[in-house]
Amino acid sequence: MTTHTDHSLDSFGDSAASATRVTPGNALRPEDIAIAKEKPTEDVAQYALRLGDDALILAQRLSHWISRAPELEEDIALGNIALDVLGHARSFLSYAGHAWDKTEDDLAYWREEDEFRSLWIVEQPNGDFGFTIARQLVVSVYQYLLYTELLASTDGTIAAIAAKALKEVDYHRDHAVQWALRLGDGTEESHRRMQDALELVWPYVDEMFDDDALIDAVGDAGVRPSSLRAAFDAQIASVLDEATLSVPNVPRASGGGRRGEHTEHLGYILAEMQVLARKHPGATW
Amino acid sequence: MTTHTDHSLDSFGDSAASATRVTPGNALRPEDIAIAKEKPTEDVAQYALRLGDDALILAQRLSHWISRAPELEEDIALGNIALDVLGHARSFLSYAGHAWDKTEDDLAYWREEDEFRSLWIVEQPNGDFGFTIARQLVVSVYQYLLYTELLASTDGTIAAIAAKALKEVDYHRDHAVQWALRLGDGTEESHRRMQDALELVWPYVDEMFDDDALIDAVGDAGVRPSSLRAAFDAQIASVLDEATLSVPNVPRASGGGRRGEHTEHLGYILAEMQVLARKHPGATW
Repeated sequence: MTTHTDHSLDSFGDSAASATRVTPGNALRPEDIAIAKEKPTEDVAQYALRLGDDALILAQRLSHWISRAPELEEDIALGNIALDVLGHARSFLSYAGHAWDKTEDDLAYWREEDEFRSLWIVEQPNGDFGFTIARQLVVSVYQYLLYTELLASTDGTIAAIAAKALKEVDYHRDHAVQWALRLGDGTEESHRRMQDALELVWPYVDEMFDDDALIDAVGDAGVRPSSLRAAFDAQIASVLDEATLSVPNVPRASGGGRRGEHTEHLGYILAEMQVLARKHPGATW
Repeated sequence: MTTHTDHSLDSFGDSAASATRVTPGNALRPEDIAIAKEKPTEDVAQYALRLGDDALILAQRLSHWISRAPELEEDIALGNIALDVLGHARSFLSYAGHAWDKTEDDLAYWREEDEFRSLWIVEQPNGDFGFTIARQLVVSVYQYLLYTELLASTDGTIAAIAAKALKEVDYHRDHAVQWALRLGDGTEESHRRMQDALELVWPYVDEMFDDDALIDAVGDAGVRPSSLRAAFDAQIASVLDEATLSVPNVPRASGGGRRGEHTEHLGYILAEMQVLARKHPGATW
């Protein structure tokens, strides 16, 4: 697939209103998705839920760096990345919810832990700054490849969300690569800590590329994760080589996020994220 | 003063390079300030330190709402406001530090509590969402008035930072006003809680308008806080009236932030903010 279908975007409001006009690569707001007439199929909705949950949980983790990074400039960089990713989550969750007459907030605040479909890598604790950079390197390279392929999704809304997200993930990837180079090829301590961080992240890499029945069902509306692995390995190897770091050789964690099976960390994230909305349901108060 | 002097801006790098070009109202980056040849006077530096500290501590408080707001959209809104304000802090602190050959990071991470010059209102705990909105209303109206007057500062860098910040604070003020109206004129519970929140914020309002010796010394490079009070009272009264809320009548807290005297809360904020930078001084590691 080299071009993508975007006919479903015709249903997004007044095309003359530039603030809400949707073109591939431009902003696709959750509000636009919420008012769209066309609903995703059940399979596409489940697929969007996965991508939305990955982004939502990663955003929670990244946002904790605001006010805790080693430089004010980095506070802002990680904060901006967190908000970008949270924006992607809103778009994917809005679209998924559209199939079930639920809002993004319904899905974020009113599901239980075993209903979340996010990967294990995003729910792991931030660790030190090196761990966060190592995770960002892995996740942003992955998302860059995934969203690039999703430009050709047969589902126009998925393609449009991916087009918007891709521009931002391109920056996230560059940010992580620059830090990996700076730390890997920096001082002896920064090199050692960056390599240690990679070892800690790596058990969670394989799960990202697992195929399953939903991937078969969603077909060309989605992307087969396993198809991204070769390009991922090549990009990562290139970065790590330049950073004088090596690709870890460690056993994989079992994974299971796509089936709602999570590590103990997700529960704490959800408790913090959901408490206010659940305390005052249906409105701010 | 109805126009402002910006001759000092001529020293900010290559005016042909649009990415770093400085014009009033456009971005003035901490990097631009750091390379500027002209240094602020000691008084102006102390004045910039106050404004920078107000913004820095407020940003720390606001960033905690990311992942804890009642709606995903509000997560992003408060997160963006936090990052805007953190950007203002970086600019003011970079400029202040320029007088003492210190960086923004030196000032953020290597001062003790009694060296911070921020107002008490920004260091108070977030409380519930209503308290945060009440504080945002007060602070953003104040900053809007302050930065508007600072457009006419005789110090061109202060004027340029204010011009950039003003555009963003204008949005912050609008955000707080809309929430104050929605909550104040909403349900019985939201009205009660918003009024309670105002009562909790109000003791910290008076300190914002205190003049002192530095204000005399800095002259037309700064703004006399007491001169902003009438316009502040009028704007606040207008918003609260429309929101069916009333201006609280409560005793003032003593204040003392401008002299480095703080409530017990600032120490905890600094501990969290400074730990990583202090653990690995001089570099990321």
